Amino acid sequence: MGVVVDLNSGRSGRPSFEPLQALVSNDLIAVNTEIVKRMASPVAMIPQLAGHVVAAGGKRLRPILTLASARLCGYEGQRHVALAACVEFIHTATLLHDDVVDESNMRRGLASANAVFGNKASVLVGDFLFSRSFELMVEDGSMRVLAILSHASAVIAEGEVLQLTTSNDTETGERAYLEVIEAKTAALFSAACRIGAVVAERPKVEEEALETFGQNLGVAFQLIDDVLDYSAKQAEFGKTVGDDFADGKITLPVILAFRRGSEEDRIFWRRCLEEQDLHEDDLAHAQHLLQKHKALDDTVERARHYGAIARDALGLFPQSDYKAALLELVDFCIERAY
Amino acid sequence: MGVVVDLNSGRSGRPSFEPLQALVSNDLIAVNTEIVKRMASPVAMIPQLAGHVVAAGGKRLRPILTLASARLCGYEGQRHVALAACVEFIHTATLLHDDVVDESNMRRGLASANAVFGNKASVLVGDFLFSRSFELMVEDGSMRVLAILSHASAVIAEGEVLQLTTSNDTETGERAYLEVIEAKTAALFSAACRIGAVVAERPKVEEEALETFGQNLGVAFQLIDDVLDYSAKQAEFGKTVGDDFADGKITLPVILAFRRGSEEDRIFWRRCLEEQDLHEDDLAHAQHLLQKHKALDDTVERARHYGAIARDALGLFPQSDYKAALLELVDFCIERAY
Repeated sequence: MGVVVDLNSGRSGRPSFEPLQALVSNDLIAVNTEIVKRMASPVAMIPQLAGHVVAAGGKRLRPILTLASARLCGYEGQRHVALAACVEFIHTATLLHDDVVDESNMRRGLASANAVFGNKASVLVGDFLFSRSFELMVEDGSMRVLAILSHASAVIAEGEVLQLTTSNDTETGERAYLEVIEAKTAALFSAACRIGAVVAERPKVEEEALETFGQNLGVAFQLIDDVLDYSAKQAEFGKTVGDDFADGKITLPVILAFRRGSEEDRIFWRRCLEEQDLHEDDLAHAQHLLQKHKALDDTVERARHYGAIARDALGLFPQSDYKAALLELVDFCIERAY
Repeated sequence: MGVVVDLNSGRSGRPSFEPLQALVSNDLIAVNTEIVKRMASPVAMIPQLAGHVVAAGGKRLRPILTLASARLCGYEGQRHVALAACVEFIHTATLLHDDVVDESNMRRGLASANAVFGNKASVLVGDFLFSRSFELMVEDGSMRVLAILSHASAVIAEGEVLQLTTSNDTETGERAYLEVIEAKTAALFSAACRIGAVVAERPKVEEEALETFGQNLGVAFQLIDDVLDYSAKQAEFGKTVGDDFADGKITLPVILAFRRGSEEDRIFWRRCLEEQDLHEDDLAHAQHLLQKHKALDDTVERARHYGAIARDALGLFPQSDYKAALLELVDFCIERAY
């Protein structure tokens, strides 16, 4: 007798992003409408370029965090929709500016806006989206939200500059690397969650719980992103493997492998990442060294640590579909490494 | 008998920026202190790079407009100091992003931050200053100020993108050019003045008068800047002559000379500005054509028109030292062309 093979069977029971996506799906449609409406401009290149990035889509993870956090807090209004759009605009602006910066060629599987429209337009359209985001917050009218997102934006920029000063430096330690990702990635996750509690007018302790949730989820998410940049799994996400390597970015997998390796290994890492003198088989050799020193596995382990803190941060919220879906999201962010 | 020659004698009685600078000098010291304090960051490259641009100084024209507008409105507090710093931060961020964009090599007579620190750092430090500016506004606590400056920032970005789409296009008309400078330059002048009335809690009619003043002063200022880019006078300001020409920027002097010139002239302008195929004597020939067609003189005439509107906008304010100094500033902005 034949056995019906479920091609996804090995993955059944695995944590998924889908429950959360299903819960926020109506809200997310409203966010997408708001995004399209608010990136309109008589200057045609703005919606063209912004549309290229925003429409490319990604998972809308950050605005979904705002939507879900507000609902988790029992919010029943609609203010969270525009604020989720603000979060996405800030994220899109940082992507556009990051593309200029890193000369990366691919973003979310499409050619980056930078490659299509040029550096010039990417910087300026990023500035437009960033400004527009503050206009939306002003319309919403909450000084608390403005404080949280303006502070997050400054921290993100600080993190990006800090990354510059550590980039190509193989002496970078784990602590310095964590400082970078806490700022450049986790600050927006954290702010996106926190403003959910603000619109719901919940007590400070819930605001702070959501901030802690977002912050730790953000660190875990970035650690796994850094793993995926060296992993075959990456292709599934439509991203290029080896971008960080080609850019000479010092990420945790590299930091671990560098410290655990031989002097010969270190000479290799320095040549590739500091001198950026890259040969054809270097990426494969880098992947071999990461494997050999369990650098990818242990980076995932570090991510689990932050994921555990994120999960516990939600402890004070009563059981709900949103809570369950957010807890599953933490696991999904980590397990997507495999 | 010898005659004592005053080397500046030819300039005596000419409109000057000095009376206004003298009136705001104490406030401006406070602004400079605030700027230095608020661009501090544990990430050393931020104050280094921002300091390079901010310390290079320029005339601090935009923050001075905020200071003077507030005082013109009878404001006696200190909120205008931090808000003037916000205005300067926004201006500095746009300079940093503009430098990335235009690959200009000189700014205010010093090597541009871009040339010294690289594109990457310039974009990100610009983002930091921009975010920090919104943090300062949040601390100030006026939603009106936030609305005015977030809107101005979006308009500036729109203007910069619009400029991109007209750059290198010799078909650009005077109206399209004006739209660009109304957005990229005048919007910040206008907002800088308007928030002076907001902190002074003056009626809307005074807010709008100051907005009109700033808007028209900004257009006049930019028109003269565009003249100076082709003028020998430029060297006095420590700027390079011919930057706009080298960048293929379509400014009003060029628009006038292009329309008034022969077909042979137009072939020349197209080769230089559209194809950016530049030879050694091209700048001199461009200057010759601008002269021949009175394009610089007539651009100054256009600036006078906007200057007259700016002057009239102040009509409803009672006579004061601040009013006199602001009126003189209008004339100074125009007469500096000679």
